[in-house]
Amino acid sequence: MADLGMVVVGSVGLDSIETRYEKRKDVIGGSVSYACTAASFFTKAGMVGVVGTDFPEEALKQYRKFGIDLAGLVTAEGKTFRWGGVYAEDMMHRTTRFTELNVFADFHPQLPASYCDVPFVMLGNISPELQLEVLSQVNGARFVVADTMDLWINIADEALAEVIQKVDMLLLNDDEARLLTGEHQLLQSAYWILDRGPRYVVIKKGEHGAMLITKDALAIIPAYPVDKVVDPTGAGDCFAGGFLGYLTGRGGTDLRSVREALLYGSVIASFGVEAFSLERFASMTPADIEERAAHLRDMVRFD
Amino acid sequence: MADLGMVVVGSVGLDSIETRYEKRKDVIGGSVSYACTAASFFTKAGMVGVVGTDFPEEALKQYRKFGIDLAGLVTAEGKTFRWGGVYAEDMMHRTTRFTELNVFADFHPQLPASYCDVPFVMLGNISPELQLEVLSQVNGARFVVADTMDLWINIADEALAEVIQKVDMLLLNDDEARLLTGEHQLLQSAYWILDRGPRYVVIKKGEHGAMLITKDALAIIPAYPVDKVVDPTGAGDCFAGGFLGYLTGRGGTDLRSVREALLYGSVIASFGVEAFSLERFASMTPADIEERAAHLRDMVRFD
Repeated sequence: MADLGMVVVGSVGLDSIETRYEKRKDVIGGSVSYACTAASFFTKAGMVGVVGTDFPEEALKQYRKFGIDLAGLVTAEGKTFRWGGVYAEDMMHRTTRFTELNVFADFHPQLPASYCDVPFVMLGNISPELQLEVLSQVNGARFVVADTMDLWINIADEALAEVIQKVDMLLLNDDEARLLTGEHQLLQSAYWILDRGPRYVVIKKGEHGAMLITKDALAIIPAYPVDKVVDPTGAGDCFAGGFLGYLTGRGGTDLRSVREALLYGSVIASFGVEAFSLERFASMTPADIEERAAHLRDMVRFD
Repeated sequence: MADLGMVVVGSVGLDSIETRYEKRKDVIGGSVSYACTAASFFTKAGMVGVVGTDFPEEALKQYRKFGIDLAGLVTAEGKTFRWGGVYAEDMMHRTTRFTELNVFADFHPQLPASYCDVPFVMLGNISPELQLEVLSQVNGARFVVADTMDLWINIADEALAEVIQKVDMLLLNDDEARLLTGEHQLLQSAYWILDRGPRYVVIKKGEHGAMLITKDALAIIPAYPVDKVVDPTGAGDCFAGGFLGYLTGRGGTDLRSVREALLYGSVIASFGVEAFSLERFASMTPADIEERAAHLRDMVRFD
């Protein structure tokens, strides 16, 4: 078994999704599922999360097929986390139909000993308090990325501030950046965050791509334009997972590596939205990835 | 006097604008004002439009300072076109307070003889019927760009279809592209348009930049991120004017020239939003433009 390159902590769940094209019930979802699968094309990723006793064996089989390490995936008595949502005609805006936390409600991430000195760590969509619990277990990490959600920005100010202070990169979307910082202009909101700890801030803008901001550099990462979006669920997690997976595989945390990793994150996310759940990744090859990466580089080359 | 390189037809007006920072009354506005001023950094641009007898001499002086040719600007008995709007906190969404067409209501563009063989033409926000009237007067044009608006998509299907068939490039925003084509996926909407005539389609996405689509190429032009947006009014027109001005100055209409021109359009628009009306252009230098162009190229260079 290859050495574990990175670990992702977050939700594992079953999603019920409705789009203008199709309806699907109880498909594999959750930030950890998407991020680890996305990362698996570049490195060996470990999953930290919890599922219920109803979680399908078939899903675990899929994770294993992607070479994901499951030592940190706990099965608890009860039902798996479930989320249901419906997408608007534009395939961007969505409405949550239901959220059943189930076993995720009492989740306290306990990392296997083998995970604690892993170099790259992604803190997914769990509460800042839980993110701090994870941080205290991965003292040897070289590079930690935290994702956040508007929910936590609204209710967990202090713990979130501590997370922000301790991580190398904060990933958040444009609305969250404005909500967190009170700054309406995106660059100003990024500088606000940089002043509080992280070396890197990445502001995600969905189908419009993302922006990387450091104290002295800016990069704009477009979303790779796809012919047909089938299901945008998890796109942000695929972006984050693809990003950190690439960075882990490359082994560098300098600006140049981070920029390149973001390009790969964008490419991986573009595959993810072309099918429901993890389905598109089953047929995606390294050559497909390189083809889109080269194409995306060309789309934004002006000289 | 330098030869006229391009002509812009559209609205000239006085805008009353309210943002979270400031209110301004009756400042110079309209698509032609913005586009010609933006273009003036690269070429000699001619203005085709109408103003009322109340249009301030000071505004004309400003146009002249930018070297804009005013032979096509007619003064009609009556009041100048006026628009009033207020921007939301996010500085992107806006609400129209009032629209007074005034002399613009009876506008029929009549091009001076010297304009009729100008090589580059921009058809701004006038009705497709009027755009066709202009097209019949500029038979010698090498490259025609049409801008459109949701209003015309809703009410002037046939004339708009004829415009689309006759122009080299259609510029429209993402919502308009969906409305016009009935396609929700942007790439599909662009292919729908390309099938109907133009060689180039540019879909504008406001603060997220724009996308160029041809039958066999894609380019993504980010918006140059500015520290502080003071007034986004006219940004799309500055983008279009900067684009066509650069293209005119360069003299090519091949893909490479068009891509480069879009980068410059983005740069010019970024200056435009940093102040009300045309104010920022008064202090902008060619060196400022080149600096941002180089910076923007770097932001999206991944290799």
